[in-house]
Amino acid sequence: MKSGLFVTVEGTEGVGKTTNMAFVQQYLEARGINVLRTREPGGTPLAENIRELLLAQRDETVDSTAELLLVFAARAQHFNQVICPALAEGNWVLCDRFTDATYAYQGAGRGLDVSLIAQLEQVVQGPLRPDCTLLLDIDVSAGLARAGRRGALDRFETEAQAFFERVRQCYLSRAQAEPHRFRVVDAGQSLEQVQAELAAVLDQLLAR
Amino acid sequence: MKSGLFVTVEGTEGVGKTTNMAFVQQYLEARGINVLRTREPGGTPLAENIRELLLAQRDETVDSTAELLLVFAARAQHFNQVICPALAEGNWVLCDRFTDATYAYQGAGRGLDVSLIAQLEQVVQGPLRPDCTLLLDIDVSAGLARAGRRGALDRFETEAQAFFERVRQCYLSRAQAEPHRFRVVDAGQSLEQVQAELAAVLDQLLAR
Repeated sequence: MKSGLFVTVEGTEGVGKTTNMAFVQQYLEARGINVLRTREPGGTPLAENIRELLLAQRDETVDSTAELLLVFAARAQHFNQVICPALAEGNWVLCDRFTDATYAYQGAGRGLDVSLIAQLEQVVQGPLRPDCTLLLDIDVSAGLARAGRRGALDRFETEAQAFFERVRQCYLSRAQAEPHRFRVVDAGQSLEQVQAELAAVLDQLLAR
Repeated sequence: MKSGLFVTVEGTEGVGKTTNMAFVQQYLEARGINVLRTREPGGTPLAENIRELLLAQRDETVDSTAELLLVFAARAQHFNQVICPALAEGNWVLCDRFTDATYAYQGAGRGLDVSLIAQLEQVVQGPLRPDCTLLLDIDVSAGLARAGRRGALDRFETEAQAFFERVRQCYLSRAQAEPHRFRVVDAGQSLEQVQAELAAVLDQLLAR
């Protein structure tokens, strides 16, 4: 059986990932593709438990290396128990954040050693990388204003704007370095424009 | 200020760690030492949350790499937030299990790559290793019989006897490879004999 495609969706806070992931899923399913929609950190009961630990506001300082290892622990569980089996069965996997987010948030955001992230990526994923990464890009202030409308903030959402500027620039430079994998979509456009661009990307993927 | 000593206590299930750690703590405190008694995985609120995730019985298969990364995530938090600051203030740290347990349980027990464990040890601890490791050693069957008396079993305690045999042999071979750090105490002896041996080791440490 032909392996499915692994599509990840990335972007900073308030970029519209949830709405646009629902659109991508529907678009693909309408064309006969079985889509497993999932997210990181999370995607299995254990990995969702780890997500709760990562996002919770805490009295203690969270060590950055501990945070990074938690992210990859959740990823190992999700990747081996869910993503790889689904791809092997011919499904497409549509994942809300993946390892690019680790480079962006823990690497650029927290300032952790990028070579350590690359080591852990190799340990957990071996050679497997997403087939396509949809980067929804928006001006940080505009995104934070959108995200702020959603009520209580988690441990990442309370970071300063400079943190998210570093995250965004990391995403954009990764996209520039890997143009065959990334598709950057301007999420500041109207929803119709964003989804027209997404549809065009998906049509290319479907033609592969 | 002179840094304190870092003493770890290791051993398989039912070896009497809790009772003997209380003895070690009292013995040191009676001689004017400030002792921070702690445990792994655990030792901070976040690390104790991770411990709960590790020990819980689960319906899903727990990926071995995920388990290993969770162990080191808890360690990074505990090491950087608790152990190192306590040592720097001149306290002794008495820790129920540390990285030797990772080599024994995740390495020998689960069969994970030892070089990966060594990499993570270096990432999380840098050059710091325990000053002294007290290995309480007992025949696996005898230990399991003791541990079984304590009620509900966690995810490790339900492993087969062969798992614990591998764990024990790994501990013993590590002790043989590092005779200056390890002190092996036969935990099958009477409690009086065990504690007389522990007292002799502690007297040596106090004389350093």
